[in-house]
Amino acid sequence: MNTPIVTSRSVLITYPEVQAARGLLPSVLQHWIDRLGGDLSRICGYQLGLCRSDGTPTGKIDGKLLRPAFAFLCSAVAGGVPTDVVPAATAIELLHNASLIHDDIMDGDRERRHRPTVWAEFGIPSAILAGDALIALAFEVLVGSKNQATSDAVANLAKTLRLLARGQDSDLRFENTSIVGVDDCLAMMAGKTGALLGWACRSGVAYAAAPAVWLDRFEQFGTRLGVAFQLVDDVLGIWGDPQVTGKPVGSDLRGRKKSAPVVAALTAGTAASARLAGFYSGARGFTDKEVTLLTELVADAGGRNWALSEAERQLSAAWDLLDGLELEPTARRSLTTLTSDLITRRR
Amino acid sequence: MNTPIVTSRSVLITYPEVQAARGLLPSVLQHWIDRLGGDLSRICGYQLGLCRSDGTPTGKIDGKLLRPAFAFLCSAVAGGVPTDVVPAATAIELLHNASLIHDDIMDGDRERRHRPTVWAEFGIPSAILAGDALIALAFEVLVGSKNQATSDAVANLAKTLRLLARGQDSDLRFENTSIVGVDDCLAMMAGKTGALLGWACRSGVAYAAAPAVWLDRFEQFGTRLGVAFQLVDDVLGIWGDPQVTGKPVGSDLRGRKKSAPVVAALTAGTAASARLAGFYSGARGFTDKEVTLLTELVADAGGRNWALSEAERQLSAAWDLLDGLELEPTARRSLTTLTSDLITRRR
Repeated sequence: MNTPIVTSRSVLITYPEVQAARGLLPSVLQHWIDRLGGDLSRICGYQLGLCRSDGTPTGKIDGKLLRPAFAFLCSAVAGGVPTDVVPAATAIELLHNASLIHDDIMDGDRERRHRPTVWAEFGIPSAILAGDALIALAFEVLVGSKNQATSDAVANLAKTLRLLARGQDSDLRFENTSIVGVDDCLAMMAGKTGALLGWACRSGVAYAAAPAVWLDRFEQFGTRLGVAFQLVDDVLGIWGDPQVTGKPVGSDLRGRKKSAPVVAALTAGTAASARLAGFYSGARGFTDKEVTLLTELVADAGGRNWALSEAERQLSAAWDLLDGLELEPTARRSLTTLTSDLITRRR
Repeated sequence: MNTPIVTSRSVLITYPEVQAARGLLPSVLQHWIDRLGGDLSRICGYQLGLCRSDGTPTGKIDGKLLRPAFAFLCSAVAGGVPTDVVPAATAIELLHNASLIHDDIMDGDRERRHRPTVWAEFGIPSAILAGDALIALAFEVLVGSKNQATSDAVANLAKTLRLLARGQDSDLRFENTSIVGVDDCLAMMAGKTGALLGWACRSGVAYAAAPAVWLDRFEQFGTRLGVAFQLVDDVLGIWGDPQVTGKPVGSDLRGRKKSAPVVAALTAGTAASARLAGFYSGARGFTDKEVTLLTELVADAGGRNWALSEAERQLSAAWDLLDGLELEPTARRSLTTLTSDLITRRR
């Protein structure tokens, strides 16, 4: 049943733009994190993987740096050079991590990237502040950059933060709503995951001084990619290998999370849908055996296949948006391969 | 023992600039809050007092609108007109409320302005998001304003958010640190309360196209005012009338909060200091009788007098910063009276 898949980290680092992100960003991020001072430098540094919980530097950075990589790639596609797009790439990684810290509190997730989440390690109050501090830094990085794209980038980063909050709010509400359709789910994902990647792509071309008409198109391109990316993430949240994903097995189902495959399964009208709904309407914790059964029910009701096909559809619609734009050919090839890899990854 | 004091709300509304804030802001704030959509509009509207928890409009706004009032007053002092400063006044009220929502979660405060706090009413996840959403809106208001001051305002709003987080982080740490000096406490207050008022004053003159040299001076002016304001707030947190302040009696002492008067009392080296320290080092809850005793101990150790004198000193230092600047005389008189009223208020 499983689609042949590749590991995204190893694929990602074959791209020069991703190497640029991994080469340039850690020291820039460290510089900004240091500006916070006191406990906040240590806590935010921990979130980014720059240091351990006691403040000891790790000499590396955590995370895929996927959003910065898209900023670099979109800049290259528009003929820009990597150094110009560093402020945007830095800001997006800071805002992304702010949203991860806050989301982990809301979702009650205790583990991320094989380590305790910030709230689990430092408590909820410090985690709220660390998120706020990273939001502040994201804006400070942008306004400090003195680029013709700054004004557009700042305005749209604020919009992105608003859409992120709206998307996460919908996600929270879905957990307490009996009927959620796949369209509601896709709209929520466009906010929760699409907005950040939309901003990364928009800013990538904006910092490369691309024609004005490119900006909205790349924003929508990135938004659709983000939805595709989240669909695959949701599939991995159920069927992914915990050793590879870094997330505890079955945690989405145990938490009765209405992720996209589950919503598709619940609304498919099959016998498996009805059984799944029965389990989801209860309140007690699931046994390991039940989690295995739920995993099968979501697949039997077509949730897995729907999510993977919808990811393909979103990817195709994303590329349609760039039709007719004169993209730099080499970077375009990288972008094409990377976007395809992302929906066939296993972490 | 009690200094003769006045009620700030009734004093505030005698100022034309404060009337301008109260007249102009509610509809503008409602417009921006509506943009959030869904639950977030209702939750953020509730925080601002624009609607009840079920979304029913109240037809009014809560809070003193003190920070917007300072933006209007500082603009007037620099010869500006109220309408020009509306974006800054709106942004500061949004950011202030974002920080109140997040702080109430961190401090575990269940009541504000005689109503349940946002987290107590809607839960912690929604409260975190509501705060994030208001931060986003604050930046969106500014970047949408197309004013020559926009760039300075955005850069400094981001800095303000960072300093706020840093100040609140210090505040949290103080609760778990046995020795805190009054200087640490004043530095924390400069971030936690000073930064917002500093930005309000800076932006007030920036939006009035004041000379560049005014900007930093008004920022520091506002920061010192904020510290003075917080010192009085801390005094009211112990000796204020719950009917007037809207805060439960003795809550700061019950929560073993190291507010400025308490820190001054603890570090005064008197017999009362030692008794107070004994109570603060325990872990069990205090009886009503003990809260009354603690209130007396803080006063006996000089905590109340120190806080009120320090507030006077900060106010005086604030005004020294504006020496030599040609301020519009009528607005200057209003600003002088208002700043004096603020340290003799009872709520």
